[in-house]
Amino acid sequence: MKKRLFTPGPTPIPENVALAMAQPIIHHRNPEFIEIFSRVNENLKYLFQTKQDVYTLTSSGTGAMEAAVANLLSFGDKAIFVNGGKFGERWGEICRAYGVDAIEIKIEWGRAVTPEEVRDELKKHRDVKAVFVTHSETSTGVFTDVKELAEVVHENSDAVIVVDGITSVGAHELYMDDWGLDVVITGSQKGLMIPPGLSFIALSEKAWKMVEKSNLPKYYFSLKKARKALQNGDTPWTPAIALIVALDVALKMIKDEGLENIWKRHEKLSKAVREGCKAIGLKLFGNPPSHAVTAVYFPDGIDKKEFQKVLKYKYGITVAGGQEHLKDKIFRISHLGYYDEIDIVGVISALEMALAEVGFDEFKLGDGVKAVQKVFAEYEKIEVKQGGNDEFLSCCH
Amino acid sequence: MKKRLFTPGPTPIPENVALAMAQPIIHHRNPEFIEIFSRVNENLKYLFQTKQDVYTLTSSGTGAMEAAVANLLSFGDKAIFVNGGKFGERWGEICRAYGVDAIEIKIEWGRAVTPEEVRDELKKHRDVKAVFVTHSETSTGVFTDVKELAEVVHENSDAVIVVDGITSVGAHELYMDDWGLDVVITGSQKGLMIPPGLSFIALSEKAWKMVEKSNLPKYYFSLKKARKALQNGDTPWTPAIALIVALDVALKMIKDEGLENIWKRHEKLSKAVREGCKAIGLKLFGNPPSHAVTAVYFPDGIDKKEFQKVLKYKYGITVAGGQEHLKDKIFRISHLGYYDEIDIVGVISALEMALAEVGFDEFKLGDGVKAVQKVFAEYEKIEVKQGGNDEFLSCCH
Repeated sequence: MKKRLFTPGPTPIPENVALAMAQPIIHHRNPEFIEIFSRVNENLKYLFQTKQDVYTLTSSGTGAMEAAVANLLSFGDKAIFVNGGKFGERWGEICRAYGVDAIEIKIEWGRAVTPEEVRDELKKHRDVKAVFVTHSETSTGVFTDVKELAEVVHENSDAVIVVDGITSVGAHELYMDDWGLDVVITGSQKGLMIPPGLSFIALSEKAWKMVEKSNLPKYYFSLKKARKALQNGDTPWTPAIALIVALDVALKMIKDEGLENIWKRHEKLSKAVREGCKAIGLKLFGNPPSHAVTAVYFPDGIDKKEFQKVLKYKYGITVAGGQEHLKDKIFRISHLGYYDEIDIVGVISALEMALAEVGFDEFKLGDGVKAVQKVFAEYEKIEVKQGGNDEFLSCCH
Repeated sequence: MKKRLFTPGPTPIPENVALAMAQPIIHHRNPEFIEIFSRVNENLKYLFQTKQDVYTLTSSGTGAMEAAVANLLSFGDKAIFVNGGKFGERWGEICRAYGVDAIEIKIEWGRAVTPEEVRDELKKHRDVKAVFVTHSETSTGVFTDVKELAEVVHENSDAVIVVDGITSVGAHELYMDDWGLDVVITGSQKGLMIPPGLSFIALSEKAWKMVEKSNLPKYYFSLKKARKALQNGDTPWTPAIALIVALDVALKMIKDEGLENIWKRHEKLSKAVREGCKAIGLKLFGNPPSHAVTAVYFPDGIDKKEFQKVLKYKYGITVAGGQEHLKDKIFRISHLGYYDEIDIVGVISALEMALAEVGFDEFKLGDGVKAVQKVFAEYEKIEVKQGGNDEFLSCCH
């Protein structure tokens, strides 16, 4: 059976990226790798839309979150974090593990924090050093306007704004420098289309000044060590070489497609998923919606396990479940990374068939796919650059 | 040009292991992965010769070193570390970064610590909580008898012994449980024959009791979180899936060959490298020698850069240089992981040719290879299990 992942990490790996990993291993201090790594570092700046260096860490995205906390702050520092989902909550957990005084803005999971809520909290705590937010909350499929939040943070405090872009980088518009985002982090198995194992972090000048003063313990995730090593085009510890070789190929694909086109594609595909779901009578969870992942309520009365089984074992499709208290309430369809229109038609058609098989009858087969196609028809045609033969190919044998 | 790595990490990746990484990515919570990960976990216990669980971290080996320090100790705890090379020194750096009172046994780089030196230090500091040692010091090619040290530590203190097995696991005899090693760590791009990006750590019951009490900050490297996740066959953070899929293949190869055979092979190949080097007039650095890497003095009077260039760009062979104050004094030939007799003949013959080309004339071409072959002849034949046709193959076209 063909297997198709629609999970928000790992996301599908393009075949050329996967094969790049199988090439003979090269030493990270040999010229071949230094050339690759220097190209990767340039392309990561493009991805983050920053002039700052982007540091590649060998860890999951959580490692980069920890690097942000441990390198920016000191014992007893005050920080605000927005808990609107499992990954927002994680900022608080990390801060507290390090003895940071973490002030929580707890919002109902499924909505975004408002600028006013952040402003109010900043006014209550004038000495806050950092504000931790989540651009695309993977657990709820909710998008937060971090451009707006950055303005609020900078107008009302001297704090830095730290953005979890793990499922937004490569899916949502993001201009690190222009928007005044002090720290942006992301992970590899998301919009970057490579397997898990790498995370990324970039810091503004202001954030680097905090790094100089930070007294929290760190070694493996020390960004000062990373900066010193990068001055020689190197990493402080042996990096995940095979993943960086894959990243090089993936970043070239991203550059070729163009960030604006990629953001547009994610907008289009996510809209299609939402319209497709609505057309078959499914209720969406969370608002405003992320372009990376769509959260959908299980319809009432169906056998959820059976539905999931049909989807996975009859149609080969893995979607994600809900997390924490949303575990049996929602499921999540990812469209982050290496997806196109036909993939979306595929997943919506599978949803239709699986739902019909478990007795959900509030729609007619094809309703969802039709809605998906209508969204695609609305969007401007993207110029297809193809040389050579435009005829249908003849058959050879 | 064919490229051959003789570096102590990354080490060569078997082709089947490399291709495993290029397979379609699977989700770490899908049954396919859970099956792989559970087999990996069983085979890691065999590799470490322990009944304890071995935890797989997504990081370089340094991450596992940090995990050991941050999870075992508390602020102000006393620990002893042996600095007999760059990696022994690193134990001290990590301890100090975490506010641990790190007592250094500094020995001349190139020799191993003696049991007496460790005993003396333990007697001076009765309240030491941990002793950090290096089984195979990659920077000097020196082997330390950790079995003997474990006895000394247990007889003279209540401290745990923590062993850096990064370049010893899979090369040197190591029985974690039988020898009373409380903590053993290793890395992926070494004896395990997969690319960098994973590290491994196992803890004795006694070490786990210290973990319960430790107050040093940690989150990503929290072993309590790792233990809790492993109870469900899981990891707390998304693991480097592609590397674990590769690891599964590599561990099956290790099991098929058998640990005792692998240790014997490393002993034989390392002895052959040493004898080959001596036969061409090269002086060995460090004693007793590790089976993972051989450190060799550059001969006097040769152009070192030119020698390295010929080796790398004419014969495609990368060896490692010296580190820190040994930078221009020694080079290091690794024979850790996926190497056989013919590889060793290859590297020694390349050394001969490169040395001859830069004017070093204290040997005759072939002297080194001859010495290598003599070592191989001394060793017992390993039974070759091959079915089918034992005739020379006929040619087909």
